[in-house]
Amino acid sequence: MALGMEWLLRRWKELLPGLTTRALQRQYRYRCHHGPPHRAKRLVLSQLFQPLNLREDIVAGLESKPDDLTCKSQRLMIQAGLIHPSSPGCYYYMPYTVRAMEKLVKVIDQEMQAIGGQKLNMPSLSSAELWRTSGRWDLMGKELFRLADRHSKEYCLGPTHEETIADLIASQGSLSYKQLPLLLYQITRKFRDEPKPRFGLLRSREFYMKDMYTFDTCEEAARQTYSLVSEAYCNVFNSLGFHFVKVQADTGSIGGSMSHEFQLPAGIGEDRLMICSNCSFSANMETINPDQTDCPVCKGKLSETKGIEVGHTFYLGTKYSSVFNVSFHTAQNKPVLAEMGCYGLGITRILAASVEVLSTEDSIRWPTLIAPYQVCLIPPKKGSREEMGAMLMDNLYDSIVEVVPQIKGEAVLDDRTHLTIGKRLKDANRLGYPYVIIAGKKVFDNPPEFEVWNQNTGEIMFLTKEGVIELLSKVQVP
Amino acid sequence: MALGMEWLLRRWKELLPGLTTRALQRQYRYRCHHGPPHRAKRLVLSQLFQPLNLREDIVAGLESKPDDLTCKSQRLMIQAGLIHPSSPGCYYYMPYTVRAMEKLVKVIDQEMQAIGGQKLNMPSLSSAELWRTSGRWDLMGKELFRLADRHSKEYCLGPTHEETIADLIASQGSLSYKQLPLLLYQITRKFRDEPKPRFGLLRSREFYMKDMYTFDTCEEAARQTYSLVSEAYCNVFNSLGFHFVKVQADTGSIGGSMSHEFQLPAGIGEDRLMICSNCSFSANMETINPDQTDCPVCKGKLSETKGIEVGHTFYLGTKYSSVFNVSFHTAQNKPVLAEMGCYGLGITRILAASVEVLSTEDSIRWPTLIAPYQVCLIPPKKGSREEMGAMLMDNLYDSIVEVVPQIKGEAVLDDRTHLTIGKRLKDANRLGYPYVIIAGKKVFDNPPEFEVWNQNTGEIMFLTKEGVIELLSKVQVP
Repeated sequence: MALGMEWLLRRWKELLPGLTTRALQRQYRYRCHHGPPHRAKRLVLSQLFQPLNLREDIVAGLESKPDDLTCKSQRLMIQAGLIHPSSPGCYYYMPYTVRAMEKLVKVIDQEMQAIGGQKLNMPSLSSAELWRTSGRWDLMGKELFRLADRHSKEYCLGPTHEETIADLIASQGSLSYKQLPLLLYQITRKFRDEPKPRFGLLRSREFYMKDMYTFDTCEEAARQTYSLVSEAYCNVFNSLGFHFVKVQADTGSIGGSMSHEFQLPAGIGEDRLMICSNCSFSANMETINPDQTDCPVCKGKLSETKGIEVGHTFYLGTKYSSVFNVSFHTAQNKPVLAEMGCYGLGITRILAASVEVLSTEDSIRWPTLIAPYQVCLIPPKKGSREEMGAMLMDNLYDSIVEVVPQIKGEAVLDDRTHLTIGKRLKDANRLGYPYVIIAGKKVFDNPPEFEVWNQNTGEIMFLTKEGVIELLSKVQVP
Repeated sequence: MALGMEWLLRRWKELLPGLTTRALQRQYRYRCHHGPPHRAKRLVLSQLFQPLNLREDIVAGLESKPDDLTCKSQRLMIQAGLIHPSSPGCYYYMPYTVRAMEKLVKVIDQEMQAIGGQKLNMPSLSSAELWRTSGRWDLMGKELFRLADRHSKEYCLGPTHEETIADLIASQGSLSYKQLPLLLYQITRKFRDEPKPRFGLLRSREFYMKDMYTFDTCEEAARQTYSLVSEAYCNVFNSLGFHFVKVQADTGSIGGSMSHEFQLPAGIGEDRLMICSNCSFSANMETINPDQTDCPVCKGKLSETKGIEVGHTFYLGTKYSSVFNVSFHTAQNKPVLAEMGCYGLGITRILAASVEVLSTEDSIRWPTLIAPYQVCLIPPKKGSREEMGAMLMDNLYDSIVEVVPQIKGEAVLDDRTHLTIGKRLKDANRLGYPYVIIAGKKVFDNPPEFEVWNQNTGEIMFLTKEGVIELLSKVQVP
């Protein structure tokens, strides 16, 4: 053993008391590839499915068909192994995406439940009968996926659930006015046979949506509920750190008399928006005269921008309640039709829109709150001068997940130590962990310092173990 | 004010210092029925959708069609407003059921992730092409829901995803042996056009399933993975407190060379099981000679019982990996077919099976861990001698949710104070909250004592506020 090595060993024993030389030399446990995985103590990147494999083997193939990669989020998410195409407009959501989605669902659940929303779950198979009753069986045309069961009974796969919820509430017999307002929502997979599925999860044929339906006693109450839900939507987008606009919108095939969209300004947005530079007026181009350049409210100048629709609210009035006879009893025991509203948040679309608006051309960025993992730790390359830093990194990893409860399950150790730190840092950069921690040269300082990259601010800090713990303690995980 | 009332007020001021007479008289806040619900401090039963309304209006109608109510869990769950029928074999899952389901999902996620399982999410639309490749497009017959999109491309709605996952893994290019074993799972809605949907959520046409697919380097490793997943399934069922049997099973249309089912013994079970009274042998009748009465292992006596299948494991070998060319590279860089396994847990079926095996004829019982709510608090009837107990109950409610973090969101206050305690206790009994707390006569003791019913043991205790808090602190919520 060279003298330098002996010195290092001594130095490390001081830093990690109780460590034996043998333990130091046995840094990487033997992995039996014929044995099942055991309750893993550390989450190591080499065992995560994907992103690793994709990048090395598949991207070249995908990139040779540039037409398929129609926008940044789609390209980045496929390249990073976050989604994988199945049929047109249908995607596998890979584990990183499922993690982000589950976090987003938690954020939305909290906001919906805070305003009294109750979560249910409605069938995907929706009988033709229901849609014929509302007149939308014909109106929706080819956008509905239609099928017949073994008894030739016709169904569609629900793209939205106004008919379905109205039928449920009507079937409950008479609601009392005391039970209203009633705010019911679900977060489920929806189906829409898009003429041109494109932009990855931004316009797909299968997607997850949060749809809420509200029931009120009168128009005034329904408008209050409408404001309440709109406010909750603002809370969701604010907590994700989005710059968004709420615009007046067309009611389309859903119907009703008032509607707003929540839009994220983005070059690839499919909606054209007119925004007043002077007052708060903003509208989807569909709702105003396309030649109009002055704001109808303050006569200020309207400027055009494109947006990705991530939320939509509708005040429906009695459009569906009159057809399905959704009524409640007043205090005088008189049956009256309920006033309805419906409200959608595109779950998978918000994920893709996040990537679209926050990422650079080659690096994914997530809203910190819903990033698939919060931290990536990169130990030194095997055989490098800093190799012994791996022990300190393991120790740091263990301390973090032990001491900071919300980081448990949120920290990934990039154990591909046959690669340089630089190569792995580049990968981490592309995947968009909010924090990346490197065991660089300063791990030999006393006390050792780690290089901490805050990916969202671009800041690089050198922190001791205690500093890292303090930093991560402030991280919010839903 | 009568003298008795004055005494009561004085007594209560001692118990709740800082209370004014006005506050005492203003027990029930004015509820503006035209206002939206505010961030509710207390979860009150009158605002929950359902169970309330159903029981009073609908059950009679449903009970007049006894043929539709084919088993206990279906009847109880419909009566209590936990599910509501839509099309045949399709149900609305109402809010109480969604809560139980989300808890069950957490329990299962924990066990799957503890063995290295990674969660993804696969499309429901599965192309006919994939199923023709495996030969199951024809084999599955009418059980597949089939449809065509606007371009006449054929799909089925995935009842299971062997083809889909095999196609995904094959598309990832060459896996390395170092990445195996790979355990991937999803928890999604599945579709099966049952010839006779029945028994509510026990045999429905839309249902939630947890399906896991595993990939190993060789048979020995695959068998180890098989054991590992089976053990995780045992953990799930044990944590729910189930009495279950693991039996050897037929591989059916899934295929493979080894299969086991996890069965809950129940009179309405659709599977016939033979269990040895002497050794651990147990088998689905399909796998043995129906005339056999002696155990093939120890020659002990076999006895027959019926069971509800809640889990199923298959060792598939290379049945699907050979068709879809799912391979990995060995250490010698040689491509070899992966050995597969697949594993299912019926999520919605487990919910119904829980109700089926644990409930009495008229009262639902849940495994405590996944009960929709843990506690129901019943204040005294309005106008009764104990009316003032309502304040103490509110105070108890607030203390519980403040002091016992896991009970936050788990405690319901039955504010239907126009009903007697007896009537509400009966309702609470039927819904199966693990704990029911009543403000009975002993709330006038010093210190006040609450009547606490442990619904699962039948035990009744009289506890002070501190005693209630101590009891509930031990409750586990996933």
